[in-house]
Amino acid sequence: MDHTEGQERLQIDLNCDMGEGFGAYAFGHDEELLPLITSANLACGFHAGDPSVMRLTVGKCLEAGVAVGAHPGLPDRQGFGRRVMAMKPEEIYDCMLYQIAALEGFVRAAGGRLQHVKPHGALYHMANSSRDAAEAVIRAVASLDEELYLYAQSGSLVLELAEQLGLRTVAEAFADRRYQADGTLMPRHLPGAAALTEAEAAEQALRVVQEGAVHAAGGQAIPVRAGTICIHGDSSTAVQTALAVRQALEANNVRVCRPSSDG
Amino acid sequence: MDHTEGQERLQIDLNCDMGEGFGAYAFGHDEELLPLITSANLACGFHAGDPSVMRLTVGKCLEAGVAVGAHPGLPDRQGFGRRVMAMKPEEIYDCMLYQIAALEGFVRAAGGRLQHVKPHGALYHMANSSRDAAEAVIRAVASLDEELYLYAQSGSLVLELAEQLGLRTVAEAFADRRYQADGTLMPRHLPGAAALTEAEAAEQALRVVQEGAVHAAGGQAIPVRAGTICIHGDSSTAVQTALAVRQALEANNVRVCRPSSDG
Amino acid sequence: MDHTEGQERLQIDLNCDMGEGFGAYAFGHDEELLPLITSANLACGFHAGDPSVMRLTVGKCLEAGVAVGAHPGLPDRQGFGRRVMAMKPEEIYDCMLYQIAALEGFVRAAGGRLQHVKPHGALYHMANSSRDAAEAVIRAVASLDEELYLYAQSGSLVLELAEQLGLRTVAEAFADRRYQADGTLMPRHLPGAAALTEAEAAEQALRVVQEGAVHAAGGQAIPVRAGTICIHGDSSTAVQTALAVRQALEANNVRVCRPSSDG
Amino acid sequence: MDHTEGQERLQIDLNCDMGEGFGAYAFGHDEELLPLITSANLACGFHAGDPSVMRLTVGKCLEAGVAVGAHPGLPDRQGFGRRVMAMKPEEIYDCMLYQIAALEGFVRAAGGRLQHVKPHGALYHMANSSRDAAEAVIRAVASLDEELYLYAQSGSLVLELAEQLGLRTVAEAFADRRYQADGTLMPRHLPGAAALTEAEAAEQALRVVQEGAVHAAGGQAIPVRAGTICIHGDSSTAVQTALAVRQALEANNVRVCRPSSDG
Repeated sequence: MDHTEGQERLQIDLNCDMGEGFGAYAFGHDEELLPLITSANLACGFHAGDPSVMRLTVGKCLEAGVAVGAHPGLPDRQGFGRRVMAMKPEEIYDCMLYQIAALEGFVRAAGGRLQHVKPHGALYHMANSSRDAAEAVIRAVASLDEELYLYAQSGSLVLELAEQLGLRTVAEAFADRRYQADGTLMPRHLPGAAALTEAEAAEQALRVVQEGAVHAAGGQAIPVRAGTICIHGDSSTAVQTALAVRQALEANNVRVCRPSSDG
Repeated sequence: MDHTEGQERLQIDLNCDMGEGFGAYAFGHDEELLPLITSANLACGFHAGDPSVMRLTVGKCLEAGVAVGAHPGLPDRQGFGRRVMAMKPEEIYDCMLYQIAALEGFVRAAGGRLQHVKPHGALYHMANSSRDAAEAVIRAVASLDEELYLYAQSGSLVLELAEQLGLRTVAEAFADRRYQADGTLMPRHLPGAAALTEAEAAEQALRVVQEGAVHAAGGQAIPVRAGTICIHGDSSTAVQTALAVRQALEANNVRVCRPSSDG
Repeated sequence: MDHTEGQERLQIDLNCDMGEGFGAYAFGHDEELLPLITSANLACGFHAGDPSVMRLTVGKCLEAGVAVGAHPGLPDRQGFGRRVMAMKPEEIYDCMLYQIAALEGFVRAAGGRLQHVKPHGALYHMANSSRDAAEAVIRAVASLDEELYLYAQSGSLVLELAEQLGLRTVAEAFADRRYQADGTLMPRHLPGAAALTEAEAAEQALRVVQEGAVHAAGGQAIPVRAGTICIHGDSSTAVQTALAVRQALEANNVRVCRPSSDG
Repeated sequence: MDHTEGQERLQIDLNCDMGEGFGAYAFGHDEELLPLITSANLACGFHAGDPSVMRLTVGKCLEAGVAVGAHPGLPDRQGFGRRVMAMKPEEIYDCMLYQIAALEGFVRAAGGRLQHVKPHGALYHMANSSRDAAEAVIRAVASLDEELYLYAQSGSLVLELAEQLGLRTVAEAFADRRYQADGTLMPRHLPGAAALTEAEAAEQALRVVQEGAVHAAGGQAIPVRAGTICIHGDSSTAVQTALAVRQALEANNVRVCRPSSDG
């Protein structure tokens, strides 16, 4: 990419879920992904993670210079927080606040600072589709620390509400998931939904940054403005995808950095 | 109340476990006990309590002017944190830090400040009997917030270590539990261990404050210096005992107040 | 009791949830209700109950001559199994089979025989509203023991499917819940939904047995054919309601007995 | 090995833990190990496994002709059932019975028959060292089904008690763990405790079968009579070890079969 003098260099944050192991169970590819991302969403002990995993993962992130975020989920470890539960707004608020605060304790004890919050799995989707759930999520973040960023899907209900309420937000796009013509993600169970090749993921990430758009399943360009791009960490090709995305961005002179940095 | 000039008025903190309900399960007598105590130890969701109970109980404490402490326990809800578990020091540290930080989040969100930490049940006893466990408990408190008090049994290993390491501590005595000649508590399963009458509990509390001693099972005076007295909240006579203790103290011109107040 | 020749005496089963305590937590009024009912639905350790509570409650039921049924719930102890979860049919099947079999083990070890299965809370409602969920529930019961009765709401989808598939079924009506004009229960959050007086509950139970109907909220008679009537055990008036229902039935010469007895 | 006519061919059972995955978490090498063993110990949902994993693993075992056993553990999923807990005998009994019965349900639903019970981790060790714990384990097995085998360590307290009480037992030796001079296993944290090479494991297994002995750490022969040999399934070399053991046994004309087969 050719920059005229005085033109601002494009930048983007790369985030990935981390610390999803639990007790004797390993999960994901944290070690390989850490050098490739700038922000990590750490499981907080409800759907995944446990206190020891949280401490260790916070330590690794701080050492790698990766910003730490809380990745609270539903109280459903067996379902990995992916099963929607009929929770009242107050229950969502309480469950969010508990987990964010617990993780924040490990970050503080390690001398760091919690950067952001990104709800996990079904909670992420509940906040996209229910105004009550979205408000509960927003209140939980705001009531704990008004400096925290909320990572929320580009174009989502919760993102819009959070911006209206003055929360610090970062809009999120996905590199490795297919978008539909209406701007939503293609559901995982549909063929091709999560099967972008490394090259396609890299291309999609770059398009988000350079054009503020993605190509949906049908081929149309869909506007997607994002301050962060999510790389899923649990697929077998996660590391290769992250590497491809990062290299494509840097090869095109995009600065990969956490959102708190100035562009 | 009439004070002789120059004589410092005696004072003591009264603490009680609270917020031990869970989901649909009620527990204890929080509402009746709140007006009688000055510090509350709130369950943090591992052995008892849950995020919603924590939020509600924090709110009640702040409204009643009762200081809030964290009461972390072992990850054993079925055993109510009363079953000793062979946990490594790091596991104890992690499990403590997680719970304290989670509760602290609710206190902060409610505009309050966490005052103290008191380990629960088997964790309390593990910190009394194992140097490794004691150090893990101390490190967890210190690494989160050096202003926090650690409530620990008068004469215990963990209290001694915490003082050596410069932690803020409050020594604890028990009003409603029988002491043995060696200064330890009579185990619960022994007859009479927990069966002090209200009058006996009140007398024992007063003796701790006025004489720095208790009368052990055999009748001997045992030195017990304490800045706080624990009232167990889950017995059927808890409220009557707390009332008797409080009345006896005030009738004898003892100031009942949280430890952070100046004497 | 004097029967007119040729006339069959009416009979009904009375069921109630039991064994919903957990660890240090008590719940309900099992001791007082046991003499008043003929079938008990025992929590199986997911939404309520635990192995020790299950063993003790099985023992009490067998001693009281009350038939034991399994009352499996969703894996959501904090929500007491009352929050609908987006579970796949296979997950429902597995979760049901696990719990029924676990309880059956305690019944067998005590020398008894499991009589029935009644899904709890959100699972009960999921089986009423989703064909997939209903079939999973039915398969779980049938695959474990074809002699087991399935207790299911009178007029419900799961009852109809179970009958088509040849399962042994018992249709259930409610004494202490208000019905709506369409034959469904008035949702709990609506005023009056669960606030039937003891006399109203007794009258509703009697009407079910004698007329095969209830009077809905609007006053209309709704046909409700039932082989068992459910008494909720967790309200403060549960024991009085159960007593009133039982007395009304017996005063009207209705035989109160488990469904396995011949009429 | 050369058999004279009329001489009975030596035989041994090979067992391995299986079904230790949980929700989204994979664990072990079940698929590769199944063809190499004759009995599988399936986690029952407390320390590992869940209802869906149990159903799937039961199915795989039955299809592979591998006998299914229950592998109940302590209620400590985070610690994988490896942390000793101060449980009362009744709690051990209840916890065992619950899990065995739950697994038995899946086996029955699949048309199979549960063969044996082998306590897991800390529970295995508690039954080796405490008479109360051992008796609770034995009672749980016997009260559910007197045909069940109890797998217990060769020379252990629980094995001796079970034999005295008339339970069907199978003594267990370990191929891949080092023995100490007193016949006990070298604790895992000691160097070399679990680091037998494949060849050493195969040799140790063969020696158990042919000589009824192992060579302890110091080199002495220790008598170890066993009807089954345990292969640990979770190490990176588990499959190679199992293969080496099986090949060594078969190459020496040892019949590898479940204990219920006649020799």
